[in-house]
Amino acid sequence: MADPRAEILRAAARLFAAKGYAASSLNELAAAMNYSKGAIYNYFSSKQEIYDAIIILSLTGLHDASAAAVAGVGDPAERLKRFMMAHARFLADHHDSFVTMLVGFSGMADVALKQDALALRDAHEGLLRAVVADGVAAGLFREVDPAVVGRAVLSLLSWMARWFRADGAKSAEEIALDYYDLLLRGLLSRAPDERPAP
Amino acid sequence: MADPRAEILRAAARLFAAKGYAASSLNELAAAMNYSKGAIYNYFSSKQEIYDAIIILSLTGLHDASAAAVAGVGDPAERLKRFMMAHARFLADHHDSFVTMLVGFSGMADVALKQDALALRDAHEGLLRAVVADGVAAGLFREVDPAVVGRAVLSLLSWMARWFRADGAKSAEEIALDYYDLLLRGLLSRAPDERPAP
Repeated sequence: MADPRAEILRAAARLFAAKGYAASSLNELAAAMNYSKGAIYNYFSSKQEIYDAIIILSLTGLHDASAAAVAGVGDPAERLKRFMMAHARFLADHHDSFVTMLVGFSGMADVALKQDALALRDAHEGLLRAVVADGVAAGLFREVDPAVVGRAVLSLLSWMARWFRADGAKSAEEIALDYYDLLLRGLLSRAPDERPAP
Repeated sequence: MADPRAEILRAAARLFAAKGYAASSLNELAAAMNYSKGAIYNYFSSKQEIYDAIIILSLTGLHDASAAAVAGVGDPAERLKRFMMAHARFLADHHDSFVTMLVGFSGMADVALKQDALALRDAHEGLLRAVVADGVAAGLFREVDPAVVGRAVLSLLSWMARWFRADGAKSAEEIALDYYDLLLRGLLSRAPDERPAP
């Protein structure tokens, strides 16, 4: 294999996503890869180490993809749109890893790596909050709380790990665009103060 | 115990939420309850049966709570607000069960019960879509797709199972209100066609 470490992580994410982390074994992983268990031990010392590596790799890639998507874009609304589409696309392209993260739930064992994971998550959310804060400062967005909006955006996108199907009616980016449009414009057909009195 | 069946489901949800379903055993459950394993078998024949019962009970309660919250309320925006607050409150009050559902991921074994669970989920989402469609029909909401809005609302609320803490700064209902306000009014400080040309 060209990159055995990456191959192991991909196969492990597929296995964990299908069976759950606790119910998966390195024997099954080795069998699925036509690999010996010893060969896997050349790269990882335990199932837990593989799990931790999947989380770090996914969060790193997710943040890099979103950061690259907004780089050099000035308009806050356009930045928000590109952030959301990049996040959704990355999730769809690494679906097994995101299901593993969802199912793993507080499962990282290595304390230093767990700190890294939290830092990556904070960087991702921080970038998003900055986009929202910029939009408020520019007068383009209402005086919303960037923390609330950031959490809402990441909730919408994260939950896609639970239901998104690559063979569904809409692509991940189309779904992100639907959410973006809803968040940007809201439900009301006009501003509340323009509504006729009841 | 007053209601041993309910007590077993509560304790099992706590255990599954903390350890994950696959890593939990009936021995641990019995020990946590100061119960014999035989006593648990008086009510459930397997760990899987307990898991399935938690899912059905949670979805039933969730839908009943939201349906009761909107009953007799006419204004679609007010109905949406009450639906979201009731959903969030029920999730917070049954947090372990929702974490179990999140982590369980496609884990139901009983085919008939799985059909029941899907029907309950569809009823819950159907009620929400009807609220949105009513708002569109009344001219209060824009011409949004009720399926997109319904999915967005349920994504925001469902993801709370992942991060909500009862001892956090905001109650579940306050969080639901934040999301409701964001969805209703959107981010833009004014309608797009009122924005000054760039």
